[in-house]
Amino acid sequence: MVSIRGNSAKGRERRISIAVDLDEVTADTVAKRLQRYRADYGVELSRKDIQGKQIRDAVPSNHREAVEACLDEPGFSRDIPVMQNAQRILEGLSRRFEIFIATSAMDHPVSLYDRYLWLQEHLPFLTDRSYVFCGSKSILKADFLIDDNPRNLEIFSGTGILFTAHHNVYETRFKRVDSWLEVGAYFDSLV
Amino acid sequence: MVSIRGNSAKGRERRISIAVDLDEVTADTVAKRLQRYRADYGVELSRKDIQGKQIRDAVPSNHREAVEACLDEPGFSRDIPVMQNAQRILEGLSRRFEIFIATSAMDHPVSLYDRYLWLQEHLPFLTDRSYVFCGSKSILKADFLIDDNPRNLEIFSGTGILFTAHHNVYETRFKRVDSWLEVGAYFDSLV
Repeated sequence: MVSIRGNSAKGRERRISIAVDLDEVTADTVAKRLQRYRADYGVELSRKDIQGKQIRDAVPSNHREAVEACLDEPGFSRDIPVMQNAQRILEGLSRRFEIFIATSAMDHPVSLYDRYLWLQEHLPFLTDRSYVFCGSKSILKADFLIDDNPRNLEIFSGTGILFTAHHNVYETRFKRVDSWLEVGAYFDSLV
Repeated sequence: MVSIRGNSAKGRERRISIAVDLDEVTADTVAKRLQRYRADYGVELSRKDIQGKQIRDAVPSNHREAVEACLDEPGFSRDIPVMQNAQRILEGLSRRFEIFIATSAMDHPVSLYDRYLWLQEHLPFLTDRSYVFCGSKSILKADFLIDDNPRNLEIFSGTGILFTAHHNVYETRFKRVDSWLEVGAYFDSLV
């Protein structure tokens, strides 16, 4: 167990904590969105097509509203695939670190319960004590935040780790990991 | 605007932050629960009857399950009354402090969206950037937490303020406020 002494409010020893984002980090939301776009418009968008941009900026302007609106549909967030190796690596980390799953879910409040059920299904080694559905990641008190959104890392008070996603490939300000295998290796190197 | 310099991760000036609990602090959940108990069982429980205990411990054992189960019903959390003076005082505080509404909503995940809608309706001066639906309040990075649950204040890293509720009247470890008027006076005395 990795722990530090005297850094908590009450001066007790505590475990190092890692907050982990959901979309594009734990959940492969882009896979579901590209699949849905194909189903709705018959257009195949590849990961390469959306490299360096948001999906809404990679589609014709008359499709833009629809590619965002589906995120507000009940059920859309329920069957998103898990990111490769996320479960295995997170389960290992959860034995040594305090893990929080922190998602900016307020943008799509209809999805809140779906996200709860998704986490229960796919990360059964965590309890719902670990879930944080927040409007702003500035509220998070954790040692690390793994997130694909540079804006979340900017306002986070601990050490930010950028998880590579199609839209952040040109970002250079943060420690970057390309995969869950790299996340595991990074935290292995700490202990 | 109340602010402190050099206490954020990036060394910028930032506003003092106050996290505020929802049930029994911003929302008068007990009022709704007593009303529902009366409707279901025809028994009038007063605030005095539940003084110093949880509602489940103040009812006959064969009613215990039902008084908890209603919290998991869709819609139950949607029309809870607002605590007296909470809106006016919170709106005033929101001009000078950074406010977060932090609720341990994971105990009743069906209520997540209802709580979102409740906050949108009753605290329109806050945006959903302020909402935190969390499993554990140990994740909160804020200067103050106003909460009726001593266990939440125990694990909070900032200054805890106990908001008086029927079940916590014998708690003595924390600064106590009995009403939103006292909350306002407390923060007025800081500046």
